Amino acid sequence: MRAMSLDVTVGTGPLAEAAAQLLRLLPVRAHQPALAGVLLRADAEGLELAASDGEAWARVRVNATAHTDGEAAVSRRALADTLATLDAPQLRLCTEGARLAVRTDRARFALPRLDLDSFPRPPQAPAAVGVLAGADWRAAAAVAGAASREDALPLFTAVRMRSAGAVVSMLATDRFRLAAARPAWSPEPGAELDVLVPAALVAELGRQAGRSAEVRLHAEEGRFALSWLGWTVGTTSLAVAFPDRQLDQLLTAQAEATVRVDADELAAAVGRAAHYAGPRGAVTLELGDGELCVRGSDPLSGESSETLKADLLGDRLTRQYQARYLLDALRPFAGRQARLEIQSALRPTAFTAASPEPGVDLRYLVVPLRPADTTHHA
Amino acid sequence: MRAMSLDVTVGTGPLAEAAAQLLRLLPVRAHQPALAGVLLRADAEGLELAASDGEAWARVRVNATAHTDGEAAVSRRALADTLATLDAPQLRLCTEGARLAVRTDRARFALPRLDLDSFPRPPQAPAAVGVLAGADWRAAAAVAGAASREDALPLFTAVRMRSAGAVVSMLATDRFRLAAARPAWSPEPGAELDVLVPAALVAELGRQAGRSAEVRLHAEEGRFALSWLGWTVGTTSLAVAFPDRQLDQLLTAQAEATVRVDADELAAAVGRAAHYAGPRGAVTLELGDGELCVRGSDPLSGESSETLKADLLGDRLTRQYQARYLLDALRPFAGRQARLEIQSALRPTAFTAASPEPGVDLRYLVVPLRPADTTHHA
Repeated sequence: MRAMSLDVTVGTGPLAEAAAQLLRLLPVRAHQPALAGVLLRADAEGLELAASDGEAWARVRVNATAHTDGEAAVSRRALADTLATLDAPQLRLCTEGARLAVRTDRARFALPRLDLDSFPRPPQAPAAVGVLAGADWRAAAAVAGAASREDALPLFTAVRMRSAGAVVSMLATDRFRLAAARPAWSPEPGAELDVLVPAALVAELGRQAGRSAEVRLHAEEGRFALSWLGWTVGTTSLAVAFPDRQLDQLLTAQAEATVRVDADELAAAVGRAAHYAGPRGAVTLELGDGELCVRGSDPLSGESSETLKADLLGDRLTRQYQARYLLDALRPFAGRQARLEIQSALRPTAFTAASPEPGVDLRYLVVPLRPADTTHHA
Repeated sequence: MRAMSLDVTVGTGPLAEAAAQLLRLLPVRAHQPALAGVLLRADAEGLELAASDGEAWARVRVNATAHTDGEAAVSRRALADTLATLDAPQLRLCTEGARLAVRTDRARFALPRLDLDSFPRPPQAPAAVGVLAGADWRAAAAVAGAASREDALPLFTAVRMRSAGAVVSMLATDRFRLAAARPAWSPEPGAELDVLVPAALVAELGRQAGRSAEVRLHAEEGRFALSWLGWTVGTTSLAVAFPDRQLDQLLTAQAEATVRVDADELAAAVGRAAHYAGPRGAVTLELGDGELCVRGSDPLSGESSETLKADLLGDRLTRQYQARYLLDALRPFAGRQARLEIQSALRPTAFTAASPEPGVDLRYLVVPLRPADTTHHA
């Protein structure tokens, strides 16, 4: 028997932050109120917020003093919006008939309560499989940016995560570019990780959990979760086969030319050349002795040509890329020297840090454009 | 006979800023290349950039060393985009056949030149009529925010500017709210100002010219211009009759109640109540003794009620407003106490600074909503 009423005093700041983070982790898409809601449960241990969008779910604990243990569910957007700018140091949440009241000294906000019986209860997290440093998780989760935003092919909207000894392999691709990271972890004895997690969730988990000193991975039977500092967030692993072997092969570059260049300088030059890249967005990189030339050319926009200092090892090759993929591939190496390994013909170019740092081993692949190809990447 | 070539050396920063400001003043709307272009003219005095979108026009002088005097025209967006992130301290602009080249030590950007013969030459500024302090201009130009964004009724998309002795009267309205300012100015002897200027241009001129110590107004025969620090920007006055008398009458409020309240506190409370304001966006202000209550109520969103400290003089009235109009009306008084003068029935409520400051005399009117009116402001 659930207590249908609730009365709890809680700090405004921590609750507002939890509500805002929950909304970012589980953005409201569904029209079903229950999938757009948040379940609040007060008990002797404090206040728990829990929500699910039907696929992913999240729980977080907030310190609170319960006057009456119980549960209530409201819209998670309404809760986050109401709390966002409240400056009272603490507030009281209490059920009042069909409403959940948010009360401060001088204000009362009455949110319509959602039906508890039809409210989806987030599952418990699967078993813990290992621990990563928060900063490594944050850096590695950035691979999610290489996934596709379109839902047509679920395979390309996910981040593939597998345990591989002392590292976790994380990889995402939309077919035109691929990002991979291998953050070090401390696995539980005998634990394995073998999941395919929606990229948008991984990206948000990178931002949120990455601020914690460490994060814990959980996984079993097609389920995945991450926990840190009072939070547990999980989802079902996508049930599609991932072409692991082909993609792993792609990652072993056989460079015909290797260039070392300042990532920020190259990104700035590519950004300028993009204005001359025409409707295809095609920017040309031309390797020379001690330099790298960035070119754009389009009948309508005109031509650009910019030369950067760069260390070249190998052949003086020329490749064309989509400007925005180059910019994405350079972003993780901002403030550092990047290494570009250029392969034969249309095999992908690999972007890595010129001075590899321990911990994450980030690698970005971008497939060059076919010269004067007007159909590719349409 | 115009020199069809041009060769000039110019500082990158000042030129990039001029190109960016020009693009903001005259955003590219037209498909006609000439109306989306900028004319560059180099001579012994430096470099002049000039452009027109068919209605408004702008000129700016940049210090430069001309090697060959002459003219060239290119897309103003392309010029601004190319210069935006260039970090070379100076650059050379020179015509090269059908291109205008932007050259730095290590880069060349070749912009397609536009036809000079069909390029619209901005007119000279009309005669100067007076001078305002830049900060006063900036504060007064904010009245542009009360104009309508829709073009259906040109009258409501403009700022009415008239000289009135020692002040300039500036006023804009979209029928549901009205903003008026009366900045002090130093007029030329016998000079008059009587124009109707597009609000979007006034708003941008407030941001840009408002950083200057002073700005000069120019006007004659249905034309208006503003000049400051190397810039002159002008436009045709809209040729529609403005209901000056009716609007001036609106500005003399006969308050049934006057409230003094912290503008930021009220804006924050209105912002929170807006989440409970329903599809009409209706927020209620309820005057009480020493307090002001802000309420929102909607069958779907729930109810909110928040009480602020406020000094009341007069009757304990209740009025309903559109939340976003309240927020707009409070923004100019951020960080200060605002005075609300509430009139009878549906006559507009006046928002002013509780402690009037000399110089600008900003006043904002908001028409209350008809209670339970579901068609108003649709």
